Amino acid sequence: MEGMVLAQPQILRRISDRRIVVRISSPVKGKVGLICGGGSGHEPAHVGYVGRGMLDAAVMGDVFTSPAPGDILTAIKAVNGDAGILLIIWNYGGDVMNFTSAEETARGIGIVVDHVIVNDDVAIKDLKKRRGVGGTIFVQKIAGAKAEHKENLEEVKRIAEKVITNVRSMGIALTPCIVPALGKPTFTMGEDEIELGIGIHGEPGVQRSKMMKSNEIAEYLTRNIASDVKLSVGDQVAVMVQGMGGTSNMEKFIFYKDIYAQLAALGVKVRNSFVGEYTPSMEMVGLQLTVLRLDEELAQLLKEPTEAPGWHMWS
Amino acid sequence: MEGMVLAQPQILRRISDRRIVVRISSPVKGKVGLICGGGSGHEPAHVGYVGRGMLDAAVMGDVFTSPAPGDILTAIKAVNGDAGILLIIWNYGGDVMNFTSAEETARGIGIVVDHVIVNDDVAIKDLKKRRGVGGTIFVQKIAGAKAEHKENLEEVKRIAEKVITNVRSMGIALTPCIVPALGKPTFTMGEDEIELGIGIHGEPGVQRSKMMKSNEIAEYLTRNIASDVKLSVGDQVAVMVQGMGGTSNMEKFIFYKDIYAQLAALGVKVRNSFVGEYTPSMEMVGLQLTVLRLDEELAQLLKEPTEAPGWHMWS
Repeated sequence: MEGMVLAQPQILRRISDRRIVVRISSPVKGKVGLICGGGSGHEPAHVGYVGRGMLDAAVMGDVFTSPAPGDILTAIKAVNGDAGILLIIWNYGGDVMNFTSAEETARGIGIVVDHVIVNDDVAIKDLKKRRGVGGTIFVQKIAGAKAEHKENLEEVKRIAEKVITNVRSMGIALTPCIVPALGKPTFTMGEDEIELGIGIHGEPGVQRSKMMKSNEIAEYLTRNIASDVKLSVGDQVAVMVQGMGGTSNMEKFIFYKDIYAQLAALGVKVRNSFVGEYTPSMEMVGLQLTVLRLDEELAQLLKEPTEAPGWHMWS
Repeated sequence: MEGMVLAQPQILRRISDRRIVVRISSPVKGKVGLICGGGSGHEPAHVGYVGRGMLDAAVMGDVFTSPAPGDILTAIKAVNGDAGILLIIWNYGGDVMNFTSAEETARGIGIVVDHVIVNDDVAIKDLKKRRGVGGTIFVQKIAGAKAEHKENLEEVKRIAEKVITNVRSMGIALTPCIVPALGKPTFTMGEDEIELGIGIHGEPGVQRSKMMKSNEIAEYLTRNIASDVKLSVGDQVAVMVQGMGGTSNMEKFIFYKDIYAQLAALGVKVRNSFVGEYTPSMEMVGLQLTVLRLDEELAQLLKEPTEAPGWHMWS
C-alpha cells in the first residue's frame, strides 16, 4: 500500500495509520462516493483502482482477509461528498459482514450508504455462495464513470447492478500460491495437473484435470461462462484475461488469441479487451477469463477515461 | 504476437507472414521511423511499445533469439516515411549483427538508416559486452516523443544517445525460467539462494548469494547503479521496477518502497516511477531496477502521451 501511494502521489493519498487509500481530491462534493476493499494479495486491486473515474477509496485487510469495519467506516466518512456512498462488495462471508456492518453504523450517524455484491465466478453453482472475482473491476470502472457524471446514488447503483447481471468469470491454475503468514502452498498438485474453477484466495478448484492446452482451457472456460450468462449470436462483449499473478505475458496473449477464436465461433464480437493482472492471487500461475456483455450504455461508460493507475486499457 | 494485435487492432497491424508489427498508420510521412526488436519472451517488449509516441515497428524472433535480417529489412521499408529510420538495438551479438546487416542493405537501396545500441546492465563491467535491458524502454519512449515532433534523424539519435548515457539497470532472480524449446530451467538454484546480476534471457547472475530481504536487494542494486552512473545529491530520476515475469505485484510495490527509500537517502528525487513488467524474462521470478537521470529535456519528453499499449504509466 505504501509503495503504491509513493509511486502515484498525485492521485493517491493514504489515511495515516489506516489501511485506507483515497483519491487525493476526496471528498468530491455532490458526487456519489465509491468504495471497494477486501484482502490484500490481489494488487493492483483495489488501491490501484482509486482515482478520478473509478473508486474514491480502497480499504484493505491482511492478505486474503477482510478489512476491519472500523477502517471501512473511516473510509465512508473520508469520501462522503453528501451525495451518498456505494460500497462495492466481493461476495465473501467476511467482506459482506464487515462492509454491511460499517454501512449500518454509517447510516446511524446520518450518512446515506448503499451497496452491491459482486458474484461473477461461475465455478460456484450456488448463487448465494458464488464468489466475486475479476468482474468487480468492470463494476468499479462503469459505476465510477457514472458517478463522475454526478448521477444520484440510485442511478449509480442501477448501473453497477446492470454490470453484475451481465458479467461472469472463471479461472484455472497450474500452481497454488503461498500466503505469507502460512509460509507454505495453499494446496498441492502434480506437474501435469491443472485445477479448474479456482478462486483468487489460494483455494483449489472445483475439479482437477490432466494438463490441458491453451485452446482447450479457452474452450472450457468460454463454454462455462457462455452457458451461464446465455451469450448468443450477435452479442458484443468486453473480455478480461488475467494470469493470476505468475503467468508470463506471452502465455496470456496466446490464451487471449484462443479466447477470441472461441467467442468468434459463437458469433460473439469482442468490443474491448484487457490482458494483464487485475485481481491476481499473489504469485499463482493460472488464467482467469471475465466476459461482460455490453449494451451501448455499458460500452460508453467503459471507455470513458480514468486516472486510476491499475486500469491498463488494452482496447 | 497474434494475441497482442487482436487485443489492440486499432493501434497495431501485423505484416502478413512476417514477425513484424507496425503502427496501423505506418508509414508516417516526414517522421523518423523508430524500430526495435529482439527475441520473444519479453512481452510486452517490443510489440506492446508500437504506437503513436513510441515505436513504428517491432520485429521479433523466436524466444530469446534475434529476428532475421530479412524481417528487419521489411520493417524498415514498411515504416519509411522518407525522414530516415533509427534502429534501437539491444546490445547482444545476434541483434547487433542482424540489425546492422539489415541497415547496410537498406542503405544500399537508398533508405537513410542509423542506429543506437542500448547497454544499460551494470552487472556486466565490460562496456562492450554490457547488455541492454529495461533502459531500452526509456530510449523508445523519449526518442519516440522526439520523432513525433517531426525532428530530424540526427536530433532523434542525439536524444536516444542522451538517454543511453543516463540510464542504468540491474536485476536479481529467485528462479530461472524455462525456454519452451528446451523444456527445462536454464539454470538451477536452491530455495534459499538468490542470483545477483541476472540478464533477461535466463542467464544466471554474475554472483550467487544467500536469500536477501527486499530492502537488502534494494540497497545492493541502488548502490551498483548509483556508483556506475554517478548519481549525486539533487539529481532527479525516473525509476522503473520490474518483476521479471513471475513476481507478485505486492512484492514489486514493497520493493519499490525500498528503492524509493534508498534513493532518498542519497538525496536523489524520484520524479517518475513505473512499476510493472516492461522487459520480463518469460515467467522468471525476480526484480529489475532501472534508473534514468533526468534533465528538463528528458523529463518533458518522458511525460508526453503515447498510445503504445504496453506503456503503463505509474506517474
